[in-house]
Amino acid sequence: MTGDTPTPGRRGRRAGTPDTRGAIIEAARAAFADAGYDGTSLRAVARRAGVDAALVHHYFAGKSALFAATVDVPVDAARLVAEVCEGPADEVGARMVAAFLTMWDDPRQRPEMVAMLRSAVSHEHAARTLREFLAREVFGRVAAHCDGGRDDRDLRVGLAAAQMIGLALLRYVIEHPPLRDADPVALVAQVGPTLQRYMGDPAAG
Amino acid sequence: MTGDTPTPGRRGRRAGTPDTRGAIIEAARAAFADAGYDGTSLRAVARRAGVDAALVHHYFAGKSALFAATVDVPVDAARLVAEVCEGPADEVGARMVAAFLTMWDDPRQRPEMVAMLRSAVSHEHAARTLREFLAREVFGRVAAHCDGGRDDRDLRVGLAAAQMIGLALLRYVIEHPPLRDADPVALVAQVGPTLQRYMGDPAAG
Repeated sequence: MTGDTPTPGRRGRRAGTPDTRGAIIEAARAAFADAGYDGTSLRAVARRAGVDAALVHHYFAGKSALFAATVDVPVDAARLVAEVCEGPADEVGARMVAAFLTMWDDPRQRPEMVAMLRSAVSHEHAARTLREFLAREVFGRVAAHCDGGRDDRDLRVGLAAAQMIGLALLRYVIEHPPLRDADPVALVAQVGPTLQRYMGDPAAG
Repeated sequence: MTGDTPTPGRRGRRAGTPDTRGAIIEAARAAFADAGYDGTSLRAVARRAGVDAALVHHYFAGKSALFAATVDVPVDAARLVAEVCEGPADEVGARMVAAFLTMWDDPRQRPEMVAMLRSAVSHEHAARTLREFLAREVFGRVAAHCDGGRDDRDLRVGLAAAQMIGLALLRYVIEHPPLRDADPVALVAQVGPTLQRYMGDPAAG
């Protein structure tokens, strides 16, 4: 996430110094740790950083982008969700698994993602923020798009997340050989139907 | 696992002192850390502890029981597998989830199991031993019993373990509310079919 300091003078608003962006990220880290993802507003982050709320919006497209900056992972959740939701409704599970593997299999992103997952297992605050982010911005949005209003969305979304977090843990952190060495195509074929069952509309075909 | 020192004079073999059992467990911990679960033999543990191999067998029914003692979790893997494999073949997934929840939901065992899972995420040695133990003594045995010889057993067993480890992480360690508060019956209904698909025989009904 380095190198994307704002173009000087963009939009004519005072852009702050390079340190301003860092100060906002630091303030966001502290705010997420205190209040979780759901309990943190961009306004509260601005107040904590001692800057105008508009300046936070100048640097970050939204709370989701700000969270990605705090964990140093360049994930664009909105784009990811849009990609997964586009296409046949009965293949949303497979597209979800494929998108997830593409993200994790990128060697440039993996160290940060492994660090994020380890931190979530060890630190209660990191865990809360990450699970609220995933439930709200990723799994919840996909399920809302495609589950046809079925019951128990929170439970089903939680189980889909559990499957993917367990897969990430065994494939990328613990490196269990059958999962570490598995072809992504085989994983999509096996795990796609699982996510489809948790997150899709049984009536869609 | 305290309080189960052997009856004096049982089987007429020198039973050793209470410290002997502890010394064997310490030697086993070191051996598992060095060579993993698969690479450790009871003979090697005896050698490392400086005792006769028969003495290890006197205290522990087998490698699986010795591993349970090193992580301080009173899980009898053989009994667990026997229970899961007994009954209709098309409900093995549901029985597996139910047995798993019963084990984790027991408040006397949970602290040790949470500690074991946290340790596996942070420490490479602990992770290797735990995943080899689970693959060989639990998931592998169940799949061998009921998958009708399907292909890719190691991959499917790994994905079943990933689902259950992710569920344990979100329900018991991270405590994601929709999973933490879920009724075990609802979890069995949702996750049972997932494990059935990974570990059962599609031809069984």
